[in-house]
Amino acid sequence: MGNCAQGFKDFFCRPKNTNVRVSLPAVCFVWQIAMIILFGVFIRYNEEADTHWVEHKKSHNITSDIENDFYFRYPSFQDVHVMIFVGFGFLMTFLKRYSFGGVGFNFLIASFGVQWALLMQGWFHTLDHSTGKIYIGVESLINADFCTAGSLIAYGALLGKVSPVQLMVVTLFGVTLFAVEEYIILSLLHCRDAGGSMVIHCFGGYYGLAISWVLYRPKLHLSQRLNGSVYHSDVFAMIGTLFLWMFWPSFNSAITDHGDGQHRTAINTYLALASCVLTSVAISSMSQKTGKLDMVHIQNATLAGGVAMGTAAEFMITPYGALIVGFCMGIISTFGYLFVTPFLEKYLKIQDTCGVHNLHAVPGMLGGFIGAITAAAASESVYGKEGLISTFDFEGSFKDRTPGTQGGFQAAGTCVSIAFGLVGGALVGLILRLPIWGDPADDNCFEDEVYWEVPEDEESIPPVLEYNNHMIHKHQDISESNFSVEQS
Amino acid sequence: MGNCAQGFKDFFCRPKNTNVRVSLPAVCFVWQIAMIILFGVFIRYNEEADTHWVEHKKSHNITSDIENDFYFRYPSFQDVHVMIFVGFGFLMTFLKRYSFGGVGFNFLIASFGVQWALLMQGWFHTLDHSTGKIYIGVESLINADFCTAGSLIAYGALLGKVSPVQLMVVTLFGVTLFAVEEYIILSLLHCRDAGGSMVIHCFGGYYGLAISWVLYRPKLHLSQRLNGSVYHSDVFAMIGTLFLWMFWPSFNSAITDHGDGQHRTAINTYLALASCVLTSVAISSMSQKTGKLDMVHIQNATLAGGVAMGTAAEFMITPYGALIVGFCMGIISTFGYLFVTPFLEKYLKIQDTCGVHNLHAVPGMLGGFIGAITAAAASESVYGKEGLISTFDFEGSFKDRTPGTQGGFQAAGTCVSIAFGLVGGALVGLILRLPIWGDPADDNCFEDEVYWEVPEDEESIPPVLEYNNHMIHKHQDISESNFSVEQS
Amino acid sequence: MGNCAQGFKDFFCRPKNTNVRVSLPAVCFVWQIAMIILFGVFIRYNEEADTHWVEHKKSHNITSDIENDFYFRYPSFQDVHVMIFVGFGFLMTFLKRYSFGGVGFNFLIASFGVQWALLMQGWFHTLDHSTGKIYIGVESLINADFCTAGSLIAYGALLGKVSPVQLMVVTLFGVTLFAVEEYIILSLLHCRDAGGSMVIHCFGGYYGLAISWVLYRPKLHLSQRLNGSVYHSDVFAMIGTLFLWMFWPSFNSAITDHGDGQHRTAINTYLALASCVLTSVAISSMSQKTGKLDMVHIQNATLAGGVAMGTAAEFMITPYGALIVGFCMGIISTFGYLFVTPFLEKYLKIQDTCGVHNLHAVPGMLGGFIGAITAAAASESVYGKEGLISTFDFEGSFKDRTPGTQGGFQAAGTCVSIAFGLVGGALVGLILRLPIWGDPADDNCFEDEVYWEVPEDEESIPPVLEYNNHMIHKHQDISESNFSVEQS
Repeated sequence: MGNCAQGFKDFFCRPKNTNVRVSLPAVCFVWQIAMIILFGVFIRYNEEADTHWVEHKKSHNITSDIENDFYFRYPSFQDVHVMIFVGFGFLMTFLKRYSFGGVGFNFLIASFGVQWALLMQGWFHTLDHSTGKIYIGVESLINADFCTAGSLIAYGALLGKVSPVQLMVVTLFGVTLFAVEEYIILSLLHCRDAGGSMVIHCFGGYYGLAISWVLYRPKLHLSQRLNGSVYHSDVFAMIGTLFLWMFWPSFNSAITDHGDGQHRTAINTYLALASCVLTSVAISSMSQKTGKLDMVHIQNATLAGGVAMGTAAEFMITPYGALIVGFCMGIISTFGYLFVTPFLEKYLKIQDTCGVHNLHAVPGMLGGFIGAITAAAASESVYGKEGLISTFDFEGSFKDRTPGTQGGFQAAGTCVSIAFGLVGGALVGLILRLPIWGDPADDNCFEDEVYWEVPEDEESIPPVLEYNNHMIHKHQDISESNFSVEQS
Repeated sequence: MGNCAQGFKDFFCRPKNTNVRVSLPAVCFVWQIAMIILFGVFIRYNEEADTHWVEHKKSHNITSDIENDFYFRYPSFQDVHVMIFVGFGFLMTFLKRYSFGGVGFNFLIASFGVQWALLMQGWFHTLDHSTGKIYIGVESLINADFCTAGSLIAYGALLGKVSPVQLMVVTLFGVTLFAVEEYIILSLLHCRDAGGSMVIHCFGGYYGLAISWVLYRPKLHLSQRLNGSVYHSDVFAMIGTLFLWMFWPSFNSAITDHGDGQHRTAINTYLALASCVLTSVAISSMSQKTGKLDMVHIQNATLAGGVAMGTAAEFMITPYGALIVGFCMGIISTFGYLFVTPFLEKYLKIQDTCGVHNLHAVPGMLGGFIGAITAAAASESVYGKEGLISTFDFEGSFKDRTPGTQGGFQAAGTCVSIAFGLVGGALVGLILRLPIWGDPADDNCFEDEVYWEVPEDEESIPPVLEYNNHMIHKHQDISESNFSVEQS
Repeated sequence: MGNCAQGFKDFFCRPKNTNVRVSLPAVCFVWQIAMIILFGVFIRYNEEADTHWVEHKKSHNITSDIENDFYFRYPSFQDVHVMIFVGFGFLMTFLKRYSFGGVGFNFLIASFGVQWALLMQGWFHTLDHSTGKIYIGVESLINADFCTAGSLIAYGALLGKVSPVQLMVVTLFGVTLFAVEEYIILSLLHCRDAGGSMVIHCFGGYYGLAISWVLYRPKLHLSQRLNGSVYHSDVFAMIGTLFLWMFWPSFNSAITDHGDGQHRTAINTYLALASCVLTSVAISSMSQKTGKLDMVHIQNATLAGGVAMGTAAEFMITPYGALIVGFCMGIISTFGYLFVTPFLEKYLKIQDTCGVHNLHAVPGMLGGFIGAITAAAASESVYGKEGLISTFDFEGSFKDRTPGTQGGFQAAGTCVSIAFGLVGGALVGLILRLPIWGDPADDNCFEDEVYWEVPEDEESIPPVLEYNNHMIHKHQDISESNFSVEQS
């Protein structure tokens, strides 16, 4: 069991031990204590969350509490929060016997991820060098959710094949890599990427795929019986799909500019998503002899429009532009589920449980390029002089940048996110191959029994068993009079 | 199979072909492409979502971005969005084998509906005749969700008996009819109907019932085994119920006047809903010999209070007035489920799967009349001079209208919505009887297998089968020694 | 059946009659009518929800509708509303055959509770003595939801063992007791408790435990087969867990001060919850031989951090302070589920179905004391002069109170809430022992069949039965040729 070969790889071939009784509590405790210490040293409330807000208001001539950033962003924050925990979590309940792991491990790693993200993003983006402190507010919480999303996307590729300890490692490095690539893309390259087509989806998708490639399991077919859904698990997964779909306008607009920025981003995302549903359905139906729909496509491809609008939604892409993006993404993503995922598994040795390639990696990458094109096409006549500056932040050391140049940097940013995902994922994958993490055997993947206390019976069993027992009794009556049958 | 007779009706009697592999993708692609073209010609961002917002602020002396309509309405919009996709969608998962169709087709038609609604409502309400453009913002998105709700309500009556292509047709015409009746009721008759008792629920309910009447299936009893719930599907449906129930205050207040308008509407709706739950429970319990509750009533009748407050909630109906409305609606709606739905099916040939008659049609109609009475009873002493004008928009060409006249117009508006629902539904029903839409046979309704790839096993089956296999082995031991039994 | 002894207790020993056909409708109707009358006499819209808002704005120099309290609090209100109905409701669906009762009775009693709470809290807190009216707005709705939460927590301890009529009684008295203790704690003792560690969770938890103690069922083991979850019911419960967890920042911040108050409270709660997840997972994993996780802990203990931050979250507890609180609560709460709940049942005769002792009572109590310590440690150097006054409301007759004194009063408030819970619960428990309420027999607890029309089959049964029938036929072939077996 395992992906073995002679020589130094023997190290990796001991029989699988899925006992995480020491490693999981150790990781949780040690890392959480580390968080407390680092928060103690670095993290403080920012001026809008501190009791000195009263004085801040006076000194900044703010006339009303409603100007506190909390009221601009908190509703969007809560929507994003729902996407991270219910959206991603329930989307991953679709497997017949891995719903606990899908929603439960997502809960665990996201809870760790947001803490680590507050630190990592703080160090890179908002550290006050005079005091050495990171000052956090509601926008920091949203960014932490975003940052964690990258690792949750990677989990989608790994679903059912890794241990919770491995997932914690994926998150630790995922958040770290995210903060670095985000710094390069947003600060050094000065890209705009409010909804994170590049920094979140493209990075997270390729990160997960690269890890999955390194962790390739040639004998995964031994768990094939569990790698599928049942009727009700598919309905549970629709909870995840719909909350992601509905709140995606909030996701993309959560940290865009106050006023028209948030407003326009929400509209564009809403339109792209609506359009994406129709083409996903169309391709799904075309792919079956009798036009039946496949729940995998409905659960996933319908969301690709939101992913692809993560960069361009805050630009003046126009409402019909948004519809066109959604239109294409529904087609591309559904084709991905139909043809590319099997291809990846067969020829590139990438096992991608949730198909993050089609939902995040490719739509994210395309979203980055769509953003680049939209930015390059920007002009003062469309945006207005002030609008152009505020939309692209052509201020400070970037005040001479033109839309054309900006488009080039946006495209470069997309490449940076792919590179970080692939290289980072490959390295993290190697770490995860150490035989200390308690990952499941090839014939035991997609199975909650490995890491969860699973209740014994479905409620439908008692009557059936009773029925069978009744039969057994009759059976035994038969047996006893004629043969000797051992009791079961 | 089918509702056949001699003569010209033979056309309708060919054996059912549920293959939608051509028609569904064709409809999705062609209509989506049409949307893109029409959006390209007509739809633009409004001044609050456009990058020129900075200049707009200056020219209108707006001091803060928080005055952007986005911040007044976006949280309500998201709640409404949840109602449309999760609320309506999951409420329709209650059937034992039609949960995919319930939530999935709802997702499809709502995604198309909102796009078409932005155009239709735009042409009727917000088209700028000087530029020929429709300028959209967050309020447009809410209105589009509202407009689509009418068709989703109609789907409730048709659930399990129609194909996805037929549902797209229902939505296309539903949205169109909605926009027209809304224009007549709100613009020509100058009615107030913020939460849409008349324009949404009354219209949508009668629209669905009329379609269902034309599509009457005399042999629907052949699918009777599937026309019911199982334990977990009822729990899924409660997700829909609760999200509808909780967010109904947002639904009714989403497009009411800023300030006291939204505030009062939310309070009234909240109270009517709370009251409605108690009387629904009471009647449900009374209707059973031992006082047991029926999930159908809890899932549906508890919402009737929100429907009936769609018009009056923004008026000064008083908190106890709201409670009274909810009180009566719980009783009426539950009685409807107990007695009227069976009556409609038996004597009026209307098969109403979800009972939209009791949840939308009647409470919507009564809500229209409650609105009329509340409007007629309005007075300056209660509303204040300015309050009366702003609540009823007695401005411009309507500045001489009295509350009494307004009441009369409100009642007339309700009648218009009923007429549009009944006549429009009957015509659309005739279109849907063409034998080209791929609708299911009478013995194949309420069955996801027809339009969905359904996973084969429930997770509870493997252990049971294993158990049975074990028995079979024992059995075969027995058999082999005595008889010849063919292997199953 | 029942907890019987000789003498006067014979009164309590008649065979159980679970027919609620008279009592449940009677309670619903009479109490709802009482609500309507009392609302008619007492409840009016406040100045921000009344049509006179236009004039109010002018007379108070309010320049924008966005200053209406609706926009400060409505998004938080909706989140709290979701917690009350979906959060509490779905958390209680975890039992294999009591999901209808869990979510359905929660719906019923919360709908009654919020109405009664508006009255009770109005009389104690906001009655205008000059007009004799209670003026309500969005903050009243939030407070009503809070007040009801106390009774819903108590329901957690009683889940599956009481009738809906008893639950209505629990709510009637629970809301009443809540309003009194809240008045003592917040108004007389002038404690701060925005998120209700003391007034909601500590009170509610001990209230439920005391009732459960008086209603002790020595023969509850007769229902043991039903006192557990199945796979999908655990996934349903995760919906409840996650919506509670995600929206807890809104819960604690819903009625804190505008501006920094709401902002800081949300951040602190978010951090405590994140930290709590990691330690809950750690202890859960440590408690099992192979490190497997227990869904009970993940569903419940992960929330304890939010409970414990209910008082201190609005203070300057610092971000790392919040993490420490969550860290400890995850440990304490999970240990509670492992050791204290069995201990309570065995030695103290307290049957606590959902473990509210570990999720609400103890974390609430500790949250009260954490609040006391944090308050006592407050200083002008940290809070600023104005910040200290506004955070603790050191105004009016309390303007000379010091943080140290405030800490003492906070601790006293916690004791008041415990006393109210225990004494009130014991008294209510005695009332509930009257044999008129229709509660279930000891061998019939945790069973929806008692109070609900339950659909007959799971969808998984038909194929299995068919299979068995096939076997029966074969079996009968065997039988008929050799023996005489009676048909089942």
